[in-house]
Amino acid sequence: MPEAIVVVSAHSADFVWRAAGAIATAVERGAEAHVVALSYGERGESGELWKEPGQTEERVKEIRRGEAQAAAEALGASFRSLDLGDYPLVMDAAAVDRLTDLLRELAPRLVLTHAALDPFNPDHGVAHDATVQARQLASGAGVASAFVTIPPPELLTFEPHQPELCGFVPTTFLDITPVWEKKVAAMDAMGAQAYLKQYYSERAEHRANHARRISGRGGIRYAEAFQRQLPVVVDAL
Amino acid sequence: MPEAIVVVSAHSADFVWRAAGAIATAVERGAEAHVVALSYGERGESGELWKEPGQTEERVKEIRRGEAQAAAEALGASFRSLDLGDYPLVMDAAAVDRLTDLLRELAPRLVLTHAALDPFNPDHGVAHDATVQARQLASGAGVASAFVTIPPPELLTFEPHQPELCGFVPTTFLDITPVWEKKVAAMDAMGAQAYLKQYYSERAEHRANHARRISGRGGIRYAEAFQRQLPVVVDAL
Amino acid sequence: MPEAIVVVSAHSADFVWRAAGAIATAVERGAEAHVVALSYGERGESGELWKEPGQTEERVKEIRRGEAQAAAEALGASFRSLDLGDYPLVMDAAAVDRLTDLLRELAPRLVLTHAALDPFNPDHGVAHDATVQARQLASGAGVASAFVTIPPPELLTFEPHQPELCGFVPTTFLDITPVWEKKVAAMDAMGAQAYLKQYYSERAEHRANHARRISGRGGIRYAEAFQRQLPVVVDAL
Amino acid sequence: MPEAIVVVSAHSADFVWRAAGAIATAVERGAEAHVVALSYGERGESGELWKEPGQTEERVKEIRRGEAQAAAEALGASFRSLDLGDYPLVMDAAAVDRLTDLLRELAPRLVLTHAALDPFNPDHGVAHDATVQARQLASGAGVASAFVTIPPPELLTFEPHQPELCGFVPTTFLDITPVWEKKVAAMDAMGAQAYLKQYYSERAEHRANHARRISGRGGIRYAEAFQRQLPVVVDAL
Amino acid sequence: MPEAIVVVSAHSADFVWRAAGAIATAVERGAEAHVVALSYGERGESGELWKEPGQTEERVKEIRRGEAQAAAEALGASFRSLDLGDYPLVMDAAAVDRLTDLLRELAPRLVLTHAALDPFNPDHGVAHDATVQARQLASGAGVASAFVTIPPPELLTFEPHQPELCGFVPTTFLDITPVWEKKVAAMDAMGAQAYLKQYYSERAEHRANHARRISGRGGIRYAEAFQRQLPVVVDAL
Amino acid sequence: MPEAIVVVSAHSADFVWRAAGAIATAVERGAEAHVVALSYGERGESGELWKEPGQTEERVKEIRRGEAQAAAEALGASFRSLDLGDYPLVMDAAAVDRLTDLLRELAPRLVLTHAALDPFNPDHGVAHDATVQARQLASGAGVASAFVTIPPPELLTFEPHQPELCGFVPTTFLDITPVWEKKVAAMDAMGAQAYLKQYYSERAEHRANHARRISGRGGIRYAEAFQRQLPVVVDAL
Repeated sequence: MPEAIVVVSAHSADFVWRAAGAIATAVERGAEAHVVALSYGERGESGELWKEPGQTEERVKEIRRGEAQAAAEALGASFRSLDLGDYPLVMDAAAVDRLTDLLRELAPRLVLTHAALDPFNPDHGVAHDATVQARQLASGAGVASAFVTIPPPELLTFEPHQPELCGFVPTTFLDITPVWEKKVAAMDAMGAQAYLKQYYSERAEHRANHARRISGRGGIRYAEAFQRQLPVVVDAL
Repeated sequence: MPEAIVVVSAHSADFVWRAAGAIATAVERGAEAHVVALSYGERGESGELWKEPGQTEERVKEIRRGEAQAAAEALGASFRSLDLGDYPLVMDAAAVDRLTDLLRELAPRLVLTHAALDPFNPDHGVAHDATVQARQLASGAGVASAFVTIPPPELLTFEPHQPELCGFVPTTFLDITPVWEKKVAAMDAMGAQAYLKQYYSERAEHRANHARRISGRGGIRYAEAFQRQLPVVVDAL
Repeated sequence: MPEAIVVVSAHSADFVWRAAGAIATAVERGAEAHVVALSYGERGESGELWKEPGQTEERVKEIRRGEAQAAAEALGASFRSLDLGDYPLVMDAAAVDRLTDLLRELAPRLVLTHAALDPFNPDHGVAHDATVQARQLASGAGVASAFVTIPPPELLTFEPHQPELCGFVPTTFLDITPVWEKKVAAMDAMGAQAYLKQYYSERAEHRANHARRISGRGGIRYAEAFQRQLPVVVDAL
Repeated sequence: MPEAIVVVSAHSADFVWRAAGAIATAVERGAEAHVVALSYGERGESGELWKEPGQTEERVKEIRRGEAQAAAEALGASFRSLDLGDYPLVMDAAAVDRLTDLLRELAPRLVLTHAALDPFNPDHGVAHDATVQARQLASGAGVASAFVTIPPPELLTFEPHQPELCGFVPTTFLDITPVWEKKVAAMDAMGAQAYLKQYYSERAEHRANHARRISGRGGIRYAEAFQRQLPVVVDAL
Repeated sequence: MPEAIVVVSAHSADFVWRAAGAIATAVERGAEAHVVALSYGERGESGELWKEPGQTEERVKEIRRGEAQAAAEALGASFRSLDLGDYPLVMDAAAVDRLTDLLRELAPRLVLTHAALDPFNPDHGVAHDATVQARQLASGAGVASAFVTIPPPELLTFEPHQPELCGFVPTTFLDITPVWEKKVAAMDAMGAQAYLKQYYSERAEHRANHARRISGRGGIRYAEAFQRQLPVVVDAL
Repeated sequence: MPEAIVVVSAHSADFVWRAAGAIATAVERGAEAHVVALSYGERGESGELWKEPGQTEERVKEIRRGEAQAAAEALGASFRSLDLGDYPLVMDAAAVDRLTDLLRELAPRLVLTHAALDPFNPDHGVAHDATVQARQLASGAGVASAFVTIPPPELLTFEPHQPELCGFVPTTFLDITPVWEKKVAAMDAMGAQAYLKQYYSERAEHRANHARRISGRGGIRYAEAFQRQLPVVVDAL
């Protein structure tokens, strides 16, 4: 059975800017990748769509879903949304249960999500906390339980828009040079936000510069940054 | 050319309790491992030897060197000491230069050393700071320099005796089950400190328990803990 | 249109001890100042009033409202309470909505509230978290939204009673010497707590001593301390 | 009236591994000790019991209660459970009220509970937060209130299973050598988890080693570690 | 043999404002108290004396020594200065050796010194670091050594002038009400700095207010705050 | 007398990438700006120059000085170097004295320097520590001193190359749109490092994006980020 990775994001577009390279890399190596958007971001991040006269929430969601699906396909990943609403995203017990069940079902080796803090967004921290809780409920405490558990997935947070103000300190730079064209394709699928494409392309080059300086590996042209939340267990340093 | 790892410790015995498993693992995988003790620990950690009537500093150092060399051999590593004295260990500019030159010469992929803080030891922090500085001087700032530079080695700290009080938070658990017998042999080479052997054997089992809980990998019986000081650059998460 | 500042406090008296000087200063410079108390503090901080035989909750709230209104008037500010109850203050979704709507309506340049932590009070942290969330919901994520947004207000926390134990580190000392008499008047409006008036008068003098030492500005006799929660955007350093 | 200590734990077994020595010590010195388990841990930590065919939740709880009661008796403490369920433990307002009332009734000098963070358990942090809130509600803000308050109890957290990853930094080592046999008896009452008994016995010896090094007090053979959450008020340093 | 406490301060006056109550309390309980000033503060904190025409450094030191000695006597403590100069205070290896020897000779149960950080003073951090190092050298690493060691003294830092900006978080409030008159006498011995006496008297009352709120002990009128740097080892919580 | 700002950098080029906008802004507002390079960066950051056959250290310094002077002129600032050497930069007591005297002479309102930490550079932290110490020595402790003191300058650190790994958290975004052409001119004066010009131009645009999102001020096209090290004292929030 191929291993799986799951990306949990508050809104339907987050995974593209922040983790498209990680997703494409995993898929190229034979993993299944699943994007789980807790909402479509239909209220807080779809203002351009709402400028159209007579716009409806259902139509906005549909457009957002279409874009996200196309982006996920460009990366080789599945996409689904729990459609829980945004601004604010509220994760009640039932919503956490749905996310927990999804993790149990997909049994990923690796989960990616938002950083715990984001002073610029009311939903990102909620998504983080819910993911942490669902991961714990799905994998138990490392002892035998009354319920089915999965092996505890690794947990990393992807890079927020203003990293220092979100307490984000990279622990891991991923070389995404080999899959860069796929990330470009995913970004292209996201509609009109041309500036974001430029911003995150430059950001990927900057992170590559950092990765080259840290490692001396000259061939890295594009990179993504992640922060590992728990120790990694290895066979060699 | 085989890759190299370097372990820098304040005193001649530290590497055994804290990194023997990492050393043996690297050697088994074809790396060269080099232990660099900044001193023999002849004053602060050799009290038992000083109880012998007529003891001399040279004799204490010789015994300590012999034990450390035997332990290193059991792991397949080289051992050398800069013999800079302990309690206090003082790293002046010339001493840092010696360490820098050594790093340039050995060009390790990986350097292991003490945590930055140790409220119970005046020398451990000094060893940390000197290693950090020597690593920077040997590898430059990632731009072209007037002097020869090596690719920047990865930097990890090994586990101190009282981890929480030294600000040590593990980022990496190494499964040392396959090389456990070698760590035992190295500990056996360290003379009479039987209690330390028991303590660090139990500690390795506890860290294995932690590693099992984090990863779900049931086969880990012994582990060592490390804290990575800089982001790792990877090809896949 | 004059600019506005909003002070959100858990109980009706907090703004006097912690931010009266900031309010009076803003008003003197032409701003509108609005105090929003989430509760009257009728249970946890009105014990003296409850000693009166036959006392009722409504009567306690009325007295607290009268005192707070008088204090706000002395500073030139409006006062309102959401009357959400205290010990514990509970901010459910509807309560956060009310606060969000208020911020949208008042569109302040600046919001002041409690520090995130207070080990001595169950309500202060709740007020902080609700204010942070309401501010995010009112101002959006900096991109176009489905709903009306206001420019993101600056956010500062005022000084708690035991600053170090609340994680409070001042970033900003405000010289309140020119408005000191107004703060005294506001404190005088707060009923019988004579000791608090002395305590916070001395505290204002101590903070002025700190401000003088930091800046060399000898004329500061009274000061208040604040911690800015987000970067400030300036035209000159 | 004898002074009281209260131990609040998420599940019925936690107090044994983490605080049995503190409980026995307090009892030997004349205090009353009360264990309050928020749940029986019937789902997340009772997997062995669920392997029995036809097992029921009520039966699991009964067995867990029996074991915990026997362990508490071995230490001289009372045991009760609020039976709020685990995985996840949910502390709604009514549950916090029950805990608050219990603290008001028992009026402890000292409360022990979990650390605020535990990346390996969804319930431990919930128990911590509820205990902090209940303690604040029971003791008020240090000023007169509308309700009965108790003197603010001291608050310490006991040692989690992976201390560094839970942000646990010991502030206090308790010598439990004189009551070690009682802790052994309590561990023996906990059913089949033989490995945990060994793990925590070794841990107690390691903490004793730490305590000896810190204090020079050679006679300490077993110790427990705690982190004090608030300043202590003393008559002499 | 009575137990000893040692107070290490950068300049000759620090101990009065920051630890006089702790000293007097220890002395009243039968301990010997020793103040060790690393310098007289003759350059950075004696500006008033330098206004006198024809003033000399020797004369300034003499006056400072006289005041400090009188203050120490009022508390029942000895006073000595290592006379190492201030602004900047420089602790070279020989100076650390002198301090180490002094700690070995006095074998204190407890050492008090400055916080590690002080953005307003170039000497306070130097004094802290030297004290930490001397304490480590005098007490060894908890294992047998080539040299004489003393049992490791407890280590606390006293309150700096701007606590939050020095990273100072109180862990311990000491009730100094019973010895308040002695602290007043010591402050009176410090010459003309009348404002400091008022400032630190008010500060002692504020810290007493904090201590009362934390503990519910109503009788505390004056208190000093300290931060314990290492875990305390106790027989009961 | 016009107010002054001083930028202290480890090597001669740092001020251009990190603070050129702040310098040009201050100059446009009538301040005097002084760049103080502790070294020319002749060894660690001049590798391109050393590729020229027969190159000498004096010649490298001369070229670096010429470039830095041209860049400073483009901003309207003076440039001087203490020529203390790099890789490693060593700040002994005499070097700190020179820097202290310079600060006394220039009496700046504001000092800019490196962050305290930089894991990628052995000299940046040294420059930070020396600047902090020199500032303290030049401005005293806020009380009368034996020596001439200046009013304490404000202290900010400029943005390092890998901010999160240097502990850099921006507190202040400066809009440098009005002086952008001057920063471009200064970057152009720095010789062949074309990539750095691109990198820092993009970085200025990214920081402007952050500043726009924080403040809602749409007109900011280029920004620089700074971290204020001490509280600011203000007349209004």
